[in-house]
Amino acid sequence: MVYSVILAGGAGTRLWPLSRAGHPKFLHALTGTDRSLLQATVDRSAPLAPMSRTYVVTGASHAVLVARQLPAVPEGNILVEPSPRDSCAAVGLAAAVIAQRDPSAVMAVFSADHLIKDEDKFRSVVQAAVHSAEQGYLVTIGITPTRPEPAFGHLKVGPAIGGKASMVEEFKEKPPYDVAVAYTDSGEYLWNAGMFVFRAADFLAELARQKPALHEGLSRIAEVWDEPARDDTFAGLWPQLEKISIDYAVMEGAAAAGRVATVPGDFGWSDVGDFHSLAESLPCDENGNLQLGGEVVTRDVRNSVLVPAGGRLIAVIGAENMVVVDTADAVLVCPRDRTQEVKQLVDELKERGSGQYV
Amino acid sequence: MVYSVILAGGAGTRLWPLSRAGHPKFLHALTGTDRSLLQATVDRSAPLAPMSRTYVVTGASHAVLVARQLPAVPEGNILVEPSPRDSCAAVGLAAAVIAQRDPSAVMAVFSADHLIKDEDKFRSVVQAAVHSAEQGYLVTIGITPTRPEPAFGHLKVGPAIGGKASMVEEFKEKPPYDVAVAYTDSGEYLWNAGMFVFRAADFLAELARQKPALHEGLSRIAEVWDEPARDDTFAGLWPQLEKISIDYAVMEGAAAAGRVATVPGDFGWSDVGDFHSLAESLPCDENGNLQLGGEVVTRDVRNSVLVPAGGRLIAVIGAENMVVVDTADAVLVCPRDRTQEVKQLVDELKERGSGQYV
Repeated sequence: MVYSVILAGGAGTRLWPLSRAGHPKFLHALTGTDRSLLQATVDRSAPLAPMSRTYVVTGASHAVLVARQLPAVPEGNILVEPSPRDSCAAVGLAAAVIAQRDPSAVMAVFSADHLIKDEDKFRSVVQAAVHSAEQGYLVTIGITPTRPEPAFGHLKVGPAIGGKASMVEEFKEKPPYDVAVAYTDSGEYLWNAGMFVFRAADFLAELARQKPALHEGLSRIAEVWDEPARDDTFAGLWPQLEKISIDYAVMEGAAAAGRVATVPGDFGWSDVGDFHSLAESLPCDENGNLQLGGEVVTRDVRNSVLVPAGGRLIAVIGAENMVVVDTADAVLVCPRDRTQEVKQLVDELKERGSGQYV
Repeated sequence: MVYSVILAGGAGTRLWPLSRAGHPKFLHALTGTDRSLLQATVDRSAPLAPMSRTYVVTGASHAVLVARQLPAVPEGNILVEPSPRDSCAAVGLAAAVIAQRDPSAVMAVFSADHLIKDEDKFRSVVQAAVHSAEQGYLVTIGITPTRPEPAFGHLKVGPAIGGKASMVEEFKEKPPYDVAVAYTDSGEYLWNAGMFVFRAADFLAELARQKPALHEGLSRIAEVWDEPARDDTFAGLWPQLEKISIDYAVMEGAAAAGRVATVPGDFGWSDVGDFHSLAESLPCDENGNLQLGGEVVTRDVRNSVLVPAGGRLIAVIGAENMVVVDTADAVLVCPRDRTQEVKQLVDELKERGSGQYV
């Protein structure tokens, strides 16, 4: 009896101007089909958990769009946070509500804004993780590194514990580049992709041990979840909850206590951090160009990302490794190797009082 | 008593997507101010000829916008062609109508889509040309070349005839690049900029000599210009007129007959053929960027042309010598040294049935 818990949060600032505060990346069809990243995430986990056991945690400002994109998810399974309190509160809320309804539930936590190429392989990795979770481990799905990557946290893999699973010795912060190279060369590290599988009760027990106040708040909210007092309790307690990631709050401490396992996955994973990585994850045309929607006309354009999402024609001459994104109110032109800087551009817009574009 | 005749025609295809069939470049504010090229042309010649002696020849499809941009030009001075018949018919129509009203008129013919930096110098060159025109010459204002330029026709300069004027020995077609270099090195050639000064009667006499049918048709139209028969005569005769440029029809033959003079000008002239030449003609910011209207945000952008003409923000990271143009329905991204190819892109749009963008 596996439950899917999909975290539909995060702004995706480096995908600006497509991704906006009010319309973040998980709501966009960045999948090479007309399904949004969120919808593709639900589609992908549906064979593991039917809609009745599929939960989505999202923010109040995205609840309407999430509800409309996922008409098959029951109303009571869409948990709407009044304000963002980071991933520990989000996962903890889902765990507390699910445990209330099914004390023996195993939950698999996924981000709504990741791309995965080989879905069968993905599900078999999740199944292996469920097996370890049923033995009492908090399991994090580790991604087999395909390159040194300073942008991701890493997991140091420990002894095998049966099947495909191993212990996690330690969570490592985003490493400097040379450290990332050493990690990759050693073969002893996996990327921490923020995908978790555990019994809801086991997670809550670790939360109670490490972050008792957070556990207490979430438990009190869950207790009245299906009662009239929910709104008042939620509104009163939620803003007090510690804003902290699940890694810092629970997983690192649980690993130190020998309670975290990992199952490695090499199913073709991307967090779609920016337009460059998006183009690496989706099929491109014979010139290496990725076009998402709309109409383009090109002359001598290669290895570029063209996103006509504003209903206008994008015309490009003589470009290589370029990103051109058109939206209703903003156009972005940027080389692929500088898409990380889109975040700074967005910061500059905020500073100059042009927040309407953010 | 000088008359200004401003030819408001030509599509400016290489300035697409700003310049369109229905909204060609002379209607756009490509002047560094909020005045359109057409308005700037009228402003520039106003000290030479008051509005009562300022004429504009334009096409039916642009008459409304021309009339609204130039409220001070008398209604009877805006000559609206039912269809485009090239420059000889346009200049000939103006000459015939003006000669009808003032048989001794000297007319100065300008294109509505040129930029000129030093307007005082420009007007003193025109005054010198008027002096030669009053001696019976057809005068073409020659531009002192600032570079070898295969894209322009050239004038071979002959003996001086007094003042700043010289004879024109020959009109030369657009030369191959090495020939253009030889022209520039010799110091004996000027660019043919399509600016003419002559007595209307002298032009009509040359037209009658070289293109009698064209002269006959234009004369019959002019005879009834201020009478009720104008519309029918115009509609009946105009489509029959030969479609030919003033250079081919009149100026080359007149030069061979020793009737063409030139006054050289170095007043900073550009035909604003594409976004690259536009940026060479207008003042840029400290990074060498030219922004026309709208709002932009940039990081590490140099020597680029940014035209936010669609009401949207243009955001650019890491660009050099780039052109980015946003309009209501199309975005163009193109290196400055390839803006000549915009024409091919527009041709491709026509071929694929996307004429709505043209």
